[in-house]
Amino acid sequence: MTANGAWEGPPARAGDPASAIATPALVVALEAMEHNLAAMADWARARGLRLRPHAKMHKCAALARRQIAAGAVGVCVQKPAEAHALAAQGVHDLLLTNEVVDPRKLAGLAALARQVRLGVCVDAALGVERLAEAVRAARSVVDVYVEVDVGQGRCGVPAAAAGALAHRVVSHAPEAPGGPGLRFAGLQAYHGGAQHLRRPEARAQAIAHAASQVRAAVASITAGGIACPLVTGAGSGSFVHEAGSGLWGELQAGSYLFLDADYAQNTPDPGAPDFRHALFVKSQVMSRGAAHAVVDAGHKAHAIDSGLPRVWERPLQFANGGDEHGVLRPGDGAAAADLPALGETVWLVPGHCDPTVNLHTHLVGVRGGLGDGVVEAVWPIDARGALR
Amino acid sequence: MTANGAWEGPPARAGDPASAIATPALVVALEAMEHNLAAMADWARARGLRLRPHAKMHKCAALARRQIAAGAVGVCVQKPAEAHALAAQGVHDLLLTNEVVDPRKLAGLAALARQVRLGVCVDAALGVERLAEAVRAARSVVDVYVEVDVGQGRCGVPAAAAGALAHRVVSHAPEAPGGPGLRFAGLQAYHGGAQHLRRPEARAQAIAHAASQVRAAVASITAGGIACPLVTGAGSGSFVHEAGSGLWGELQAGSYLFLDADYAQNTPDPGAPDFRHALFVKSQVMSRGAAHAVVDAGHKAHAIDSGLPRVWERPLQFANGGDEHGVLRPGDGAAAADLPALGETVWLVPGHCDPTVNLHTHLVGVRGGLGDGVVEAVWPIDARGALR
Repeated sequence: MTANGAWEGPPARAGDPASAIATPALVVALEAMEHNLAAMADWARARGLRLRPHAKMHKCAALARRQIAAGAVGVCVQKPAEAHALAAQGVHDLLLTNEVVDPRKLAGLAALARQVRLGVCVDAALGVERLAEAVRAARSVVDVYVEVDVGQGRCGVPAAAAGALAHRVVSHAPEAPGGPGLRFAGLQAYHGGAQHLRRPEARAQAIAHAASQVRAAVASITAGGIACPLVTGAGSGSFVHEAGSGLWGELQAGSYLFLDADYAQNTPDPGAPDFRHALFVKSQVMSRGAAHAVVDAGHKAHAIDSGLPRVWERPLQFANGGDEHGVLRPGDGAAAADLPALGETVWLVPGHCDPTVNLHTHLVGVRGGLGDGVVEAVWPIDARGALR
Repeated sequence: MTANGAWEGPPARAGDPASAIATPALVVALEAMEHNLAAMADWARARGLRLRPHAKMHKCAALARRQIAAGAVGVCVQKPAEAHALAAQGVHDLLLTNEVVDPRKLAGLAALARQVRLGVCVDAALGVERLAEAVRAARSVVDVYVEVDVGQGRCGVPAAAAGALAHRVVSHAPEAPGGPGLRFAGLQAYHGGAQHLRRPEARAQAIAHAASQVRAAVASITAGGIACPLVTGAGSGSFVHEAGSGLWGELQAGSYLFLDADYAQNTPDPGAPDFRHALFVKSQVMSRGAAHAVVDAGHKAHAIDSGLPRVWERPLQFANGGDEHGVLRPGDGAAAADLPALGETVWLVPGHCDPTVNLHTHLVGVRGGLGDGVVEAVWPIDARGALR
């Protein structure tokens, strides 16, 4: 909503005070985000590891470009439409950490690979063959990663099958340098289930298992006379362990940039950077009862897959009020007098950043504090709703 | 994704076979939707009740216009931005079933009321005063409904307080016919918690309580010499009971048009229309394991607040695979041989229609069956993400 009451467009403009941001809106505390951005980049650089943050989290080309400017080699995406949306905004090195079997989507990706450096994952012969056909038709080159199931039980081949699939990828290698074809680029090895294990020892154990699968997959590939150039993977919950294994050469953490209420419940790993909450939903009290307040943010404004939002710096509990409402009640040790008044602002920390971002059109960057700060940037969420 | 592999725009075009709809996509089975549309309209008409379906569910002007053409007096919305989005597409009678206290949003609504018939709810003196001020500035007229908390414990005044608030509304009545001001239009009385009680007797009991609150609220209003022109409310789960009470004159059911997996778990009320599943997420198997299949629809493609999707007409269980994936396993009595093959289509019935629709850009209307049908209409979801 713009200042004149129009309903379209972003919830604020650069230069507005934070108090003027229309609600509900997705707000980034810039100092915290910049701290996280630098901390992760420095951490990877100090260990000689490539950083390729996952852009499915922020879906925002401006932030991808900032991550690349801070040292990232490029970004990851999860859907072809995300790759197209970010490429259209000048992001030129993309890894699609997912399988694609729809020939039309593959044709689109193969065409995109003429303009950007593009990696794609495979876990089946059909996917390799269809991708190879698309790449031949488009006369482009795609980096291909064989995805290994390292413990999540979702996509990926068993470790022992990696060699055969890599062999099939290599059979479609460019005949001449720069010619069209598939370039075998290594292994995709991501253990989603490990990210939210609360104790460092539990994550260490899960990633030790993942490492054993990576070792077996690499062995299965090299046994066929093929070199494995890179292992890529890891997330914001576990990357310390992948990095420590010596196997992974590239880290795909994404949530570190914003942090969310779920990740904040992990006991940090010794030696990990101290990430800070940078993503907030600004909400407004639009109804008051004697013992509760209702804000104008429900689960159309924040994801609930990893729990409800936390109320920021107030002794209040957020309860599910449905699609468009949140119900606030006094938390432990608080009383009705602690409830916010009608019209007051309440800041929420989303449970899970990725699907929360996907619900909004813009990220509003505020500098100088949520209460007294000023809007410095308003970024479109370029790949919002890029489902396909 | 268009047929040539481009990534923007709708997932299909009119005339495409259903098999060509890119995935994941939101698909409406037109025969089922038209059945639901007519069944609800006929049911309300036969009882002399006004029908004002809730458009927060479909957020789509084309469907709102169809509902009005079938006899609805207009539609409900839940956010000012939804009102603006639908009005911009020719929907001219809107009731905002929610409170608004942001003066900029109120200014936008008051301006909108010059172009459409607009109702707004209030549950506090502050809301009435700010709305009155906005309406005076815009020189428009708004229908004002006092919301009563009839059992949900969210927004709304206690029944006994309805009279005082109605009195305040009436104090801002237009001084001359057609002049600017607030027109007291009645009571908003919706019991969200009653909608998903599984047993008809439980819903009957909840709405009996709501009716007692409505009676008390009406008494509190008429005691002050003010007439209560209308009681509006009810949802797809409970409307039989509100209608039976003789108190409600207008029904706000919305989900009936599509039905969802959650509503389908309600034991139907005797005498209620038989609504049919009309909303589906089309997904594609993009990875296969020995004992599971992975589809390309996760909770960025369907809401999970009312449970995971059901797999349509196949003996498969859908398990949470994260933001972009769904994991299918054989259901009771089924075996791995029942799993779909790589590349195959799987149709999902979302748990909750409203927030699922909000994740998509378009509704694809198919006639002639999900498998063999043809795309007849592709409707933009006009108020998608209209959060403010």
